[in-house]
Amino acid sequence: MLDVAIIGAGAAGFSAGIYAARYKLQTTIFSPEIGGTMATAFEIENYPGFEKITGRDLAEKMRAHAAGLGVKFETTRVLEIEKRENFFEIRTEIAGDFRAKTVILATGTRHRKLEIPSEKKFAGRGVSFCATCDGYFFRDQTVAIVGGGDSAATAAVFLGEICEKIFLIFRGEKMRAEPFWIDKINANKKIEQIPKTNVAEFSGGENLEKVKLDTGREIIVDGAFVQIGLLPETTLADKLSIKKDERGFLKVAKNQVTNIDGIFAAGDVTNSSNNFEQVATAISEGAVAANSAFFWIQKNFEQKS
Amino acid sequence: MLDVAIIGAGAAGFSAGIYAARYKLQTTIFSPEIGGTMATAFEIENYPGFEKITGRDLAEKMRAHAAGLGVKFETTRVLEIEKRENFFEIRTEIAGDFRAKTVILATGTRHRKLEIPSEKKFAGRGVSFCATCDGYFFRDQTVAIVGGGDSAATAAVFLGEICEKIFLIFRGEKMRAEPFWIDKINANKKIEQIPKTNVAEFSGGENLEKVKLDTGREIIVDGAFVQIGLLPETTLADKLSIKKDERGFLKVAKNQVTNIDGIFAAGDVTNSSNNFEQVATAISEGAVAANSAFFWIQKNFEQKS
Repeated sequence: MLDVAIIGAGAAGFSAGIYAARYKLQTTIFSPEIGGTMATAFEIENYPGFEKITGRDLAEKMRAHAAGLGVKFETTRVLEIEKRENFFEIRTEIAGDFRAKTVILATGTRHRKLEIPSEKKFAGRGVSFCATCDGYFFRDQTVAIVGGGDSAATAAVFLGEICEKIFLIFRGEKMRAEPFWIDKINANKKIEQIPKTNVAEFSGGENLEKVKLDTGREIIVDGAFVQIGLLPETTLADKLSIKKDERGFLKVAKNQVTNIDGIFAAGDVTNSSNNFEQVATAISEGAVAANSAFFWIQKNFEQKS
Repeated sequence: MLDVAIIGAGAAGFSAGIYAARYKLQTTIFSPEIGGTMATAFEIENYPGFEKITGRDLAEKMRAHAAGLGVKFETTRVLEIEKRENFFEIRTEIAGDFRAKTVILATGTRHRKLEIPSEKKFAGRGVSFCATCDGYFFRDQTVAIVGGGDSAATAAVFLGEICEKIFLIFRGEKMRAEPFWIDKINANKKIEQIPKTNVAEFSGGENLEKVKLDTGREIIVDGAFVQIGLLPETTLADKLSIKKDERGFLKVAKNQVTNIDGIFAAGDVTNSSNNFEQVATAISEGAVAANSAFFWIQKNFEQKS
């Protein structure tokens, strides 16, 4: 019987593992891949203590940190989690079944994609899905932002401060964002709005050079930000009937517990940290979740010693 | 005019500075010393990405990280912050006066001390004020815990899992902690409770070896945890009439704003992060506060560009 089953191997999962292991809890992280969203960032310059590190390297450091403290890893997808009277049953795709006293869901999000072939080709080569993560690399350069909602609007406000020129491409006649963001965007002469338009293709050599629009226009850019929303990964949570907020993120209390006793959640999949999805916020939520799991086990199970 | 004045140079202040600088905000951190509570930890093994680092080294890395992004430092105490119509006036002890559009209070806490001379002598040499931070260094060893409240009780439950033997020393006849912690402590044979007792002196050579009690008894230990409470540093906040919770910590909303528009708070001084005071939670709150300050400035001041 595990003390803690952590689902997801991104920043939140690793942090939860590090904290759980230091509480001497038997802890396993389940994930088909290592690093989560963190591992997809070009370079991370905003995780305090590392001036500059690739997402992949930071993920590897966190993995090694957790492993060094005794956290086990199972490289598999989790198919289902079922609540039993006094524990949870974890069914995995290729590693068999496990039992755990508590579960920490750290399943993260994925960025909604345009789903055009060239988007994948230039991902990490000029095409980014996170302005906060990667915007700074394009300071004083020219970028395109794709999207018409709040995520695109706040990206435009942010990039409007640091970039030389911004093309803002959206499908509707107007943006569907909060009015004061729209006012800010309208007031910023560096931002050119291109309404009623879709991206047809990204093109370039090794790196992105052009955005081709469905109107036939072509824009020369250094980078492009696809900001059309985040999709929380809640498939496992949905089967457990875990409550979500209006945006579809898992609702947690201050101690990161969900509406189901013994199931905690941490990282981008939750509605915590003011919905600011960063490595910094994810590791905090992972730490709090592990602390809560420790005290929950202390309350609900016999003393080990 | 500064965009952001950050008061305090611990993990929360550095993180706020790093994030603010990446939003191109003019940012200065004010503090008479560098590193906050972080810098006082023996060694930090639970900040994800660093398997083992001294508190002082981690603090220096974060300082350099912020400085490298253009954050300025003023090595001075702040005497007073006054709200003006459209900005805040920052009066410092030795660096003159400053004006700022927003303020982030990251003033931290200090651990309440026993105030006996030998306590200072052995601080960092066996005497610790944070079981979560330092407990793991005493695994399978003998420790004393001083205190009778929840902080001492949860330390006893935690150390009860990882240490060989625990002496729990408190002044009253009984502990004043939540009943289930007391039950846990009573059930753990490794914990010896010593009621109606004060610590008279810590003694040893280079490192702590003995705790001398006011009953005349002497206990041989590897470490001692003084867990008699945290005192949030709220002198500046109090002059601004910032609201506090029942424990005296600054009340903040999800976006880390206080009850005063334009003043945010982050780190151990706040009631956020389920009151779990860690480097991991502090950097998260600092990041969220800087993000909020950026958007607050965008809403309330003219576009710069």
